[in-house]
Amino acid sequence: MWKPDRNSTRPLYQQIADDLEQRISYGEFPPGSLLPSERKLAEQLGVNRSTVVLAYSELRALGIIESRSGSGTRVSDSKWGATPKHTPNWRRYAEGGNFLPNLPFLRRIREALAHDPSLIDFASGELAGDLAPIQEMNTLMRQTSNTSYFGYDNPQGYGPLRQALVTHLKKYRGIRTTESSILITSGSQQSLYLVTQCLLSPGDAVAIEDPSYCYSLPMFQSAGLRLFRLPVDERGVRPEDIRSLYKKHRIRMIFINPNFQNPTGTVMAQERRSQLLDAASELGLPIVEDDPFSLTAYQCSPPPPLKSVDSIGSVLYIGSLSKIAASGLRVGWMVAPNSVVERLADARQQMDFGLSVVPQSLAAQFLNSSYFTPHLDRLRASLLYKRDLLIDALQKELGGLVHFHVPEGGLHLWCKIVPEVNDSKLLEAAIQNGVIFAPGSVYGSASGYVRFTYARARAEDIPSGISKFAQALHAAIH
Amino acid sequence: MWKPDRNSTRPLYQQIADDLEQRISYGEFPPGSLLPSERKLAEQLGVNRSTVVLAYSELRALGIIESRSGSGTRVSDSKWGATPKHTPNWRRYAEGGNFLPNLPFLRRIREALAHDPSLIDFASGELAGDLAPIQEMNTLMRQTSNTSYFGYDNPQGYGPLRQALVTHLKKYRGIRTTESSILITSGSQQSLYLVTQCLLSPGDAVAIEDPSYCYSLPMFQSAGLRLFRLPVDERGVRPEDIRSLYKKHRIRMIFINPNFQNPTGTVMAQERRSQLLDAASELGLPIVEDDPFSLTAYQCSPPPPLKSVDSIGSVLYIGSLSKIAASGLRVGWMVAPNSVVERLADARQQMDFGLSVVPQSLAAQFLNSSYFTPHLDRLRASLLYKRDLLIDALQKELGGLVHFHVPEGGLHLWCKIVPEVNDSKLLEAAIQNGVIFAPGSVYGSASGYVRFTYARARAEDIPSGISKFAQALHAAIH
Repeated sequence: MWKPDRNSTRPLYQQIADDLEQRISYGEFPPGSLLPSERKLAEQLGVNRSTVVLAYSELRALGIIESRSGSGTRVSDSKWGATPKHTPNWRRYAEGGNFLPNLPFLRRIREALAHDPSLIDFASGELAGDLAPIQEMNTLMRQTSNTSYFGYDNPQGYGPLRQALVTHLKKYRGIRTTESSILITSGSQQSLYLVTQCLLSPGDAVAIEDPSYCYSLPMFQSAGLRLFRLPVDERGVRPEDIRSLYKKHRIRMIFINPNFQNPTGTVMAQERRSQLLDAASELGLPIVEDDPFSLTAYQCSPPPPLKSVDSIGSVLYIGSLSKIAASGLRVGWMVAPNSVVERLADARQQMDFGLSVVPQSLAAQFLNSSYFTPHLDRLRASLLYKRDLLIDALQKELGGLVHFHVPEGGLHLWCKIVPEVNDSKLLEAAIQNGVIFAPGSVYGSASGYVRFTYARARAEDIPSGISKFAQALHAAIH
Repeated sequence: MWKPDRNSTRPLYQQIADDLEQRISYGEFPPGSLLPSERKLAEQLGVNRSTVVLAYSELRALGIIESRSGSGTRVSDSKWGATPKHTPNWRRYAEGGNFLPNLPFLRRIREALAHDPSLIDFASGELAGDLAPIQEMNTLMRQTSNTSYFGYDNPQGYGPLRQALVTHLKKYRGIRTTESSILITSGSQQSLYLVTQCLLSPGDAVAIEDPSYCYSLPMFQSAGLRLFRLPVDERGVRPEDIRSLYKKHRIRMIFINPNFQNPTGTVMAQERRSQLLDAASELGLPIVEDDPFSLTAYQCSPPPPLKSVDSIGSVLYIGSLSKIAASGLRVGWMVAPNSVVERLADARQQMDFGLSVVPQSLAAQFLNSSYFTPHLDRLRASLLYKRDLLIDALQKELGGLVHFHVPEGGLHLWCKIVPEVNDSKLLEAAIQNGVIFAPGSVYGSASGYVRFTYARARAEDIPSGISKFAQALHAAIH
């Protein structure tokens, strides 16, 4: 984003006025459209509000913008002369469609991080750059000299990646499958989007863990689904809840993240897994199993997925490289019955015509390479180290004020704040103090929970991040 | 896809039975699900139908599958014993949602090409591998050593690519814009998907060229839009039609491809462009301008886009690298007012969490590189050469039986077949004869038109492809 040049001899407010005039003439802000508030623009540009006030008054004097009290500052309509020309009412168009906007908390987090990259980031659910296999990827990319992979791809995804996944899923996840049962997706996000848009219909009831990252995804509501809760305790969801939800609401699908659940970090207990599969098969209910974290298991071998013991084909399995390699690669997969894979591949063609072959080819090379296992070893050790840094810091700074379960894998720690505190107030206080986290209500829980992602922040920042958080908490409860 | 090994001592039918048994046990075909017909499976595996009949009878004898007359061959339910276990009715789930399947002709084309890659391909609307800048991309990829681009990206797309596009759009398309007005998309397909899903609501009326590639995209119907036609003559659409459609149907948006239109290849006349912009601004109507082909203009400079003379912000501009570099890269863009870009970026996060940074980084490097202009020069010369080969062959083989307008840019030639012929019969006869094309009805026209894409086939195959097509045509009309 453009910022005014503080070393220029031209005053800041005039630079800002020039920039806005240009953006208006380029159609970024059409006639009649709303400009950012003075406060917001000042924040974006890192200047005082009074500088923006001056810039706006300059543009007002030129007749380019108009301010009316109560309705903000808008681009003038009259700029375009007396001819009856109408810019489309883009704002009304932008309110069309069935898509709900992202949650306000998530937009606030994104905005705060964009505005101040120095915030210590316990909010973004992804790996730090130094945990991603960047050197390995660069080496693989330099070795690449594939000459045939730039045309439209198979709708199910790049063949060699699906081949690599057949081997990978067997070796690492105990899942036996074939190329034709695999759909490559733009991460779990697209897998879930395809399932909610193409296999379910508006009004359908589905069961979702409580808490769950699913509540942070407006796609469930955008698809018109009715959501029912499966409470998660320290041994996962209770299978008997499935039966009662089915009886009461005729749920049509179960969404579950049994290994190192996001956000709670829990692993579903073995006997509950068999009971869950039994209940699902008794009721003919499909289970969507999201399994992004298993291979991060710090010290034991990763718990096997439901899919590996699914003898009758009840489970639709979702995996990705986002949490174990790099989120920006956007490579995920789904294992599903033939009819489902074909349907979703066909629908996805209409949405984006499939994934770029470049990251798919890179992912296939990486999975097949000798880099993969050593990378996982390093990743697991680093995550464990960061988790312990976080726990030590929490005990030191907030012992007695927080409760948590120690996760044995994954990227997140789910933390109950003992004193009563308002999510929003705590978040703003933390941002003020230089640290950011994800409030529990984003995941559907009551106020007073926090998800700390320890994978993203630098190790050396974790103790000071928690110390800043502790100050914010003390400020927010007093 | 797996194929039986003809050198094995194990009979083909047993290899096929083994493979199916494995795929059934892996859940690809759950209990109760339908298996491919004997004819279809034989075609997929490249064996005689009788071999598949034997394989199926083997599996029937083992109790693994069941055939009932009139309902095909299914995986047995009884395989799973007496316990009341139910596989989800995946077939019913696959019929859920609002997504219409792709057109039967398009699925037939995809299937035929997958089955027989030796078909001379006048159907796929993309460049041949040797027209894509593959060497250049590989060189750029080998030079890459970016260490910071593997995290979640800005929702509008990778910053350096948006920067590169600001320069590119100004230099090559006369469009002045800023980074914050650009949204990077997975090709024009995703741009159109976002517009139809997020800016329009079910029941809205929109105007679409006739014929148009838009009719090949079920996304318009999937979004519940009502489509009204703007007939295209050799000078493009007629602006007065906009006014009458608006009066009659209150259309809310216009979709237009003014330069080397797909499929007709026409360029909209200059005075019609101003009239179109006038009509749109008079009615406050947004124009979605899709502009994938302009830079292929063979001999003159590319016609400027509507967006370059859009003074009041009526035009939403869509571009991509698919038709001028590589479709498999999946990199496209949209230039739109701020409020629209923000809305679409937010919605896209819910669909796929944005594009992979790898192809975006590669696209930025390519646009900024000294390879770009020489690549375009080479591309234009090759397309012109192939176009002329196609025209010579059509005149030689079918003079008098076909009419067409000679395109001055783009990848396609739109051809009226003079004798009466059935689209479907002609397509099947052509496939039988080793050549494939896109029937005109895919683009919303009446029967008796053909779109020949000359960019995809090898130059040396174009004459023999048309000769095969001519044989097929003669067979189909007699």
